[in-house]
Amino acid sequence: MLDQESFGKGEREVDERSYDLGAIFKPGSVAVIGASDNPGKLGFHVMKSLTHGRYPGRIFPVNPGKDEIFGIKTFSSLSQIPETVDLVIIVLPAGQVPGTLRECEAKGVSGVVLITAGFKEIEDRSGEALQKEITSLANQAGIPIIGPNTFGLINLHLPLNASFTPEFSGVEKGKISLVSQSGGMSHLMAFLAMENGIGLSKIIGLGNRCNIDFADMVRYLMEDSETGVIALYLEGIDDPRRLIETAKRARGKKPILAYKVGRSRASDKASQFHTGSLAGKHEIYGGAFKQAGILAVESSEELLDTAKALALCPLPMGSRVAVLSGQAGPGMAACDVAEGGGLSLGTFSPETQRKIEALLPPLAIRTNPVDMGPAWYDSEATREIVKTVLEDQGIDAIILCIMFASANRASAGVLSDMLLHRSTGKPILSCLSSPDRIWEKEIKDLEASGVPNYPTPERAARSLVNLFRFSRMRVSGGNDGNR
Amino acid sequence: MLDQESFGKGEREVDERSYDLGAIFKPGSVAVIGASDNPGKLGFHVMKSLTHGRYPGRIFPVNPGKDEIFGIKTFSSLSQIPETVDLVIIVLPAGQVPGTLRECEAKGVSGVVLITAGFKEIEDRSGEALQKEITSLANQAGIPIIGPNTFGLINLHLPLNASFTPEFSGVEKGKISLVSQSGGMSHLMAFLAMENGIGLSKIIGLGNRCNIDFADMVRYLMEDSETGVIALYLEGIDDPRRLIETAKRARGKKPILAYKVGRSRASDKASQFHTGSLAGKHEIYGGAFKQAGILAVESSEELLDTAKALALCPLPMGSRVAVLSGQAGPGMAACDVAEGGGLSLGTFSPETQRKIEALLPPLAIRTNPVDMGPAWYDSEATREIVKTVLEDQGIDAIILCIMFASANRASAGVLSDMLLHRSTGKPILSCLSSPDRIWEKEIKDLEASGVPNYPTPERAARSLVNLFRFSRMRVSGGNDGNR
Repeated sequence: MLDQESFGKGEREVDERSYDLGAIFKPGSVAVIGASDNPGKLGFHVMKSLTHGRYPGRIFPVNPGKDEIFGIKTFSSLSQIPETVDLVIIVLPAGQVPGTLRECEAKGVSGVVLITAGFKEIEDRSGEALQKEITSLANQAGIPIIGPNTFGLINLHLPLNASFTPEFSGVEKGKISLVSQSGGMSHLMAFLAMENGIGLSKIIGLGNRCNIDFADMVRYLMEDSETGVIALYLEGIDDPRRLIETAKRARGKKPILAYKVGRSRASDKASQFHTGSLAGKHEIYGGAFKQAGILAVESSEELLDTAKALALCPLPMGSRVAVLSGQAGPGMAACDVAEGGGLSLGTFSPETQRKIEALLPPLAIRTNPVDMGPAWYDSEATREIVKTVLEDQGIDAIILCIMFASANRASAGVLSDMLLHRSTGKPILSCLSSPDRIWEKEIKDLEASGVPNYPTPERAARSLVNLFRFSRMRVSGGNDGNR
Repeated sequence: MLDQESFGKGEREVDERSYDLGAIFKPGSVAVIGASDNPGKLGFHVMKSLTHGRYPGRIFPVNPGKDEIFGIKTFSSLSQIPETVDLVIIVLPAGQVPGTLRECEAKGVSGVVLITAGFKEIEDRSGEALQKEITSLANQAGIPIIGPNTFGLINLHLPLNASFTPEFSGVEKGKISLVSQSGGMSHLMAFLAMENGIGLSKIIGLGNRCNIDFADMVRYLMEDSETGVIALYLEGIDDPRRLIETAKRARGKKPILAYKVGRSRASDKASQFHTGSLAGKHEIYGGAFKQAGILAVESSEELLDTAKALALCPLPMGSRVAVLSGQAGPGMAACDVAEGGGLSLGTFSPETQRKIEALLPPLAIRTNPVDMGPAWYDSEATREIVKTVLEDQGIDAIILCIMFASANRASAGVLSDMLLHRSTGKPILSCLSSPDRIWEKEIKDLEASGVPNYPTPERAARSLVNLFRFSRMRVSGGNDGNR
């Protein structure tokens, strides 16, 4: 499946290149070549991202026509900067890039974010030639380049917003690093993360990948203490072997998951134009991902939902789930997705069963899935049911669904208190839903105690299915069952 | 497929019952039997729903121990109320319900919302006997009952919030009526609708359905001028034939879509406990839905997403979609879902192609899917591309994806202005995504002009696929292609 003919051009040996990306993510100083104080220019937005994003290092705007930009002393060229420059962000027209890279080499910079477009992705063949030229220049100089044709990158832990979108700085700091071949998808997923309070660590737009590709990123992020989960968005890459081999070697260290588009004819064709790579061979990617222990998902929401579960939850030790629901309907929806995805509804031990029957009147379902409806006014009972099931040896994971109603307002707080002090390492995924963010604080507390919350029971159940697929893939070395 | 043995108990003739539900949805007066001023009681929350929900009719609290509740004169019994009572909401213990129904008959009320639980859904067989008793009482008296075991119902157009959840009144008024067998799913979907600004018309919790079932609701809503789309959430019903026959007769009048849980063994079993009906025969439902022109969907989000598309959009006349995207990645994700769902990427006419090439430099994809990236700073170009493609005879529908970045901030407004004044009746579905609701107003304007917006390109594309499935089902009388 991974023979060179069908997969990977085999032009280079795996691991030929190995750049230190530390200075790109944690630079002590950043120069912006093409900095601007004109809001119609990307160089303006890059300056805004750095400054509004509270980057703590030195910033050096470079623009031959200005003395000062954003109130910061501006230099006419890179060579004029009297101090060391770790990272250079380039926002110049494509034709000026080769010369600028030579200046970077002379200055001894450690990394470049090349925002400029107009390389391999354009119809005109001059673009491809230009990309070859800069790749060769960068490799000779030993400078890793993010891009060209990228929005940039963000390290929310420094913080460093080296992109043309200042709003990225509004994303919460967390453990998920997102590596994307598309700027648009990076923006989309960052906005979704902001809206749902999902914490990210790094956001990286690889763009046309002249000398830094997915494999290099995975290798760096595997060693990055601020990254717990690596989420990839791919269209098509020239050299998938490097990614697959890198992921294989790191197998078991940190979860990697991937959303790959290009299943359809039209998007495959589009991929070629967009990033200069055919998406192609979609099925082959699927098989290779499995072999490498990379979990494949099928939408942008599923990528984020699953990354969140992997970032917050332990993996289930088996397939036996308990569905505990404040109302039966959402519990049934969760059951459908869970069973459809290869999980089974576990049978409670006689002791658990006795306890639940003592807590719930014979008004509703007291077996699995449990309808906790009759505990409506009694959040203590809800808490005790969850606690009891959590301790049942026959249950590997819990899906917890409660829809707000006036009478159960207290239950979310009682649950988050109890779950904060739990001892077992079983995954619990929840769908606590309320209007007007009434339960916002309780849900934040729940997530802080390792219970990821989802907007619907189906998405909570799907995320648990993916945790299970991932745990099985780790054990079996490739067979994740249901996909 | 619809023979009586396999599907439907055949105990009654189709259409035996036909209640006028007008007074339930548009009562001039409402009595609350079991009204309370104790926030620990559901009778308190029902009173709060009516009063905070700005119900414009007369409200009569009934509670023998009180003179006044919520500052409203309170009666010791229904018979003491000196005026006509159209709708009665009952929040009493189950044992008191039969006597209360006799009082309702004596008073000549036109409808009852029976919130009380403890009937057919409980383990104890006395519950089923009690439900039989009240059903027979209600049928003799000719009173339609919503419930028992329901949160109630909401008519956002009156407005009337006859439920125990005051927060339902925060949902926007719109054209989608939601009929649900689960209170929990109704709450979930109402909260999702609130969060996403989806307008609803009626929200109805059918509960145990003693004499009002899905069929009765569909028949009423078909004639309801405030309802444009009927969205059903089902677990399992005793008499699906009535629903199917009712939907068949109304075919082509208004779209009906259905999300049915109970695919899995566990949720099927749960259904029996929850609503007293086996979910069972899941595949049979699928076939019957097709025959009746009911569009089946597979999650709570898909139900709302699709209902929104049906409420706002015209149906596509064919399968040829154009994907116009501000960034290539989201466009490719949309292509995958669209092609996977049976749509095809249309070929532009030579004239359209010429115009797009004049508007976009040869930097990116100018065929379908169009990457409008190079029009980044130029919202006029974006507008002209969309306008041109909209007029192309070879295109039946458009998916429009733009992720916010500082440089394209103006594009959403320019697009919503143009689309407001468009003339063709083709569906346009969008994913305009921005941080911190920066585009909230523009998206509201877009939706007001008939362009539903979705949180992800995949969900926009899935909704268009469903519009297409629905349009084909209407034409072919059952064959919706891809499911």
